[in-house]
Order: sequence, then C-alpha cells, then structure tokens
Amino acid sequence: MAQPFAASVSLITLGVSDVARSTAFYERLGWRRSAGASTDEVSFFALESLVLALWSRAELAADAGLADTPPGFGGFALAQNKPSEEAVDAALAAAVAGGGRLLKPAARTSWGGYSGYFADLDSHPWEIAHNPFFPLDATGRVTLPA
Amino acid sequence: MAQPFAASVSLITLGVSDVARSTAFYERLGWRRSAGASTDEVSFFALESLVLALWSRAELAADAGLADTPPGFGGFALAQNKPSEEAVDAALAAAVAGGGRLLKPAARTSWGGYSGYFADLDSHPWEIAHNPFFPLDATGRVTLPA
Repeated sequence: MAQPFAASVSLITLGVSDVARSTAFYERLGWRRSAGASTDEVSFFALESLVLALWSRAELAADAGLADTPPGFGGFALAQNKPSEEAVDAALAAAVAGGGRLLKPAARTSWGGYSGYFADLDSHPWEIAHNPFFPLDATGRVTLPA
Repeated sequence: MAQPFAASVSLITLGVSDVARSTAFYERLGWRRSAGASTDEVSFFALESLVLALWSRAELAADAGLADTPPGFGGFALAQNKPSEEAVDAALAAAVAGGGRLLKPAARTSWGGYSGYFADLDSHPWEIAHNPFFPLDATGRVTLPA
C-alpha cells in the first residue's frame, strides 16, 4: 500500500469573508475559476500543481471543527517562485494592481534571493520570490537541492 | 510574456512554534526532509506537486510584514484527496498515530463525498477527503470538472 499520508497537498482552501469579492480579485489577476466545480458558495481554481479553493472563512472553520477567530496572521504563507528579479517585480505589481495590498516591497534577502509579499483581500500573505538556490524546472516548479 | 501572477503555488510555509518538533511530526508520517535545503531554522519537504516549508511562526510573520497574533483558526485548510473512503480512513489514522489531533472523524458529507480533518502540532488543519466528483489522475492529482 502507498504511504497513507503522502508528502502531497491536493488542495488549499482559503477562508474568506466574501467569496464573490475574493473570486473577482483572483480573476482580475487572470486566474480562471472552474465553472463546473464552483458554486455561489465556493470557488475552485485549477492551479498548475494543485487546486486553490476560496470558501467562507466561517464555514471552513466549522467544517474543520475549529472555532473561528478574528482574522489575523494565520501562521502560513503561500509563495510563488520566479525565474528572475524582474519577474518578481512584475508579479507583485500585477497583484497590487488587482487590489492586493503590498506588505513588503521586493528586496534582496539575507539568504541571497529577492522577495516581496502582498496580502490578498483577507490578508492571506503571498510571497513572490526569486531563489537562485531552488532552481525552477521546465514547468516552473521548484526543485530542491537533494 | 507569461501571466505575471499565474494560477500557481510554488511553496507553502506553515508557521510553527517549534521547527524541530513539527519536522519530527511530518517525518513520523514518512515525509522526507530535504537535507540539502533545510537548516536548523527551516525545514523543506519536496511534495509531489510543490514544496512545504516549516518555519518559525514569529519569523514568518515578521518576514511577511505582519503582526503575529495568537494561534487560532488561520483561515485556511490544506487537503489531501484520496481515491477511496478506506484511503481516507488510513490517512487519518496514520496522522493521528503520528501525533496529529483528530478534529473531525471521517464521515459522509453533504456534498456527496467522505472527509475528515486532523490538526498538526500548531493546529494547522488538514482535510483528508474522497471526492467522487473531482477524479484523481494517474499521478494522484485532483482534476476539476471543466
């Protein structure tokens, strides 16, 4: 039998305060909502490597059996790695133009890369990074040193 | 030029209170930490479709330019989709055996699937689901209806 809890993430769900508003945000960035999978209550996006879902924060908390808490730092960050510093700048600019909030302008980092952060409409943080030590493969996916 | 902020997630970072302790948790589940990429301060795991990183919650908040807040519901859930109800049960059992906390036992859902949740050591929620409407491809990746 395969490892039961494999090193894999199939789907990320972000809990949001207004599904339509957050859906429009990601659509403004050029993402395509799956019409077949989505409803008024939940939006699904097929990502290059997994599925991102937007769903009511309150309903997600209830579904997970957790008490909802006031939005704050959620203890996680999403990241998108880029092949160059210029591509980092372009992605951050596109996100801010779409209504994202710049958390940290892109800058050289202590670990030898280049990165910045923006927050989506529910303050979910996205890092946009160029990391010369984690090369991207032909499909843009991060490869880690062995 | 490619879409600057593509529908893609390269890396997820979970902010944790004790990197060594949380790393040991995921290792108990059979995940392999990348020795080449990881340090005492941050652990990286090459997932099937992206990279999962574990890093100090406080440092992650600071890096993102956000105020840290007491851990609570973070407004997101990770999910792993499975080909059968039995595989859901097996994954939840493995996670709990490894030290995860069962949030919601697996059960039939209102949307016609089967799912349960566990929390990792920092209460990051993972859903383990069998969704007959989102078939898995040959590599185990979720496919969405068009």
